[in-house]
Amino acid sequence: MKEIIAIIRPSKMAQTKTVLEGLGFPAMTANRVLGRGKQKAIVGELGFEVDNKELLNQPGDMRYIPKTMLTLIVPDEDASLVVEAIMKVNKSGQYGDGKIFVCPIEDIITVRTSERGEAAI
Amino acid sequence: MKEIIAIIRPSKMAQTKTVLEGLGFPAMTANRVLGRGKQKAIVGELGFEVDNKELLNQPGDMRYIPKTMLTLIVPDEDASLVVEAIMKVNKSGQYGDGKIFVCPIEDIITVRTSERGEAAI
Amino acid sequence: MKEIIAIIRPSKMAQTKTVLEGLGFPAMTANRVLGRGKQKAIVGELGFEVDNKELLNQPGDMRYIPKTMLTLIVPDEDASLVVEAIMKVNKSGQYGDGKIFVCPIEDIITVRTSERGEAAI
Repeated sequence: MKEIIAIIRPSKMAQTKTVLEGLGFPAMTANRVLGRGKQKAIVGELGFEVDNKELLNQPGDMRYIPKTMLTLIVPDEDASLVVEAIMKVNKSGQYGDGKIFVCPIEDIITVRTSERGEAAI
Repeated sequence: MKEIIAIIRPSKMAQTKTVLEGLGFPAMTANRVLGRGKQKAIVGELGFEVDNKELLNQPGDMRYIPKTMLTLIVPDEDASLVVEAIMKVNKSGQYGDGKIFVCPIEDIITVRTSERGEAAI
Repeated sequence: MKEIIAIIRPSKMAQTKTVLEGLGFPAMTANRVLGRGKQKAIVGELGFEVDNKELLNQPGDMRYIPKTMLTLIVPDEDASLVVEAIMKVNKSGQYGDGKIFVCPIEDIITVRTSERGEAAI
């Protein structure tokens, strides 16, 4: 099993979710984060209100940008498909399109059913 | 060492914390996330206020549900006990009981003491 | 590649960011979390407003403390340098200095360019 973590623009969240659901991956976790790539931040990209002004307005010439972090657990053989699908929806060719991370997962458990491993995805 | 990530109902957070503390695992990190399993979301389950309405009210027939994400680092030999304890507290048999992930951790460092590995847990 | 996750005091975030940027690691993700180590929480350390009072005011004698979680992906050979730099900035010798986790990452993709692996860091 792999954990796929995608840090994307908040404005792309709904479409990304719809596509992943259509491909058979409805289960995911969404989280707000503040991210910064190697580029300087793009002013005006803020997609939602940030209540932690301390994080947002740092001294210096770079700023953090609110991003949505999506996390999915998928079987090994589906990792490539999910990565490609997220790229298809989120790739605009502009800085700020985001990053996707693929991490190993050793086990997963569904609390309600006690199922483990791929049955628990 | 293993990282145990549990995505549970916010209403179960206090009891889960008390049980883990009683078992000798007081150190943990808590985070708010919005999650969705394979089921449709249960209306009325919201356990705390969500300030990112964009994430919560997505178009389509499913909604994201606020969850609490607990993260603990434990020695390999305690991973099974911690998973079982979290399941015991959080298993109601109803959809929405949550998921637990077990991930490998290569190293951990306590900043204050510079201790590494299991001594740093 | 390694994922370096540092849970530090919010008040140390700006300096940590500046140092990492100076070392050639400008890309990172910041997130607010509530953490608790083995110590009892230090009253008065709160660095920013917490809107989830349910998480903050738990029954019992311990409290959760707002922390900033920084996440960076670095090549294997830079992991030690980044860990040491974060420790240098954040080590006061007082409880609450934080923890650093080193986790394996299998792949990373830059959405804009489709670059993978170390080229995508």
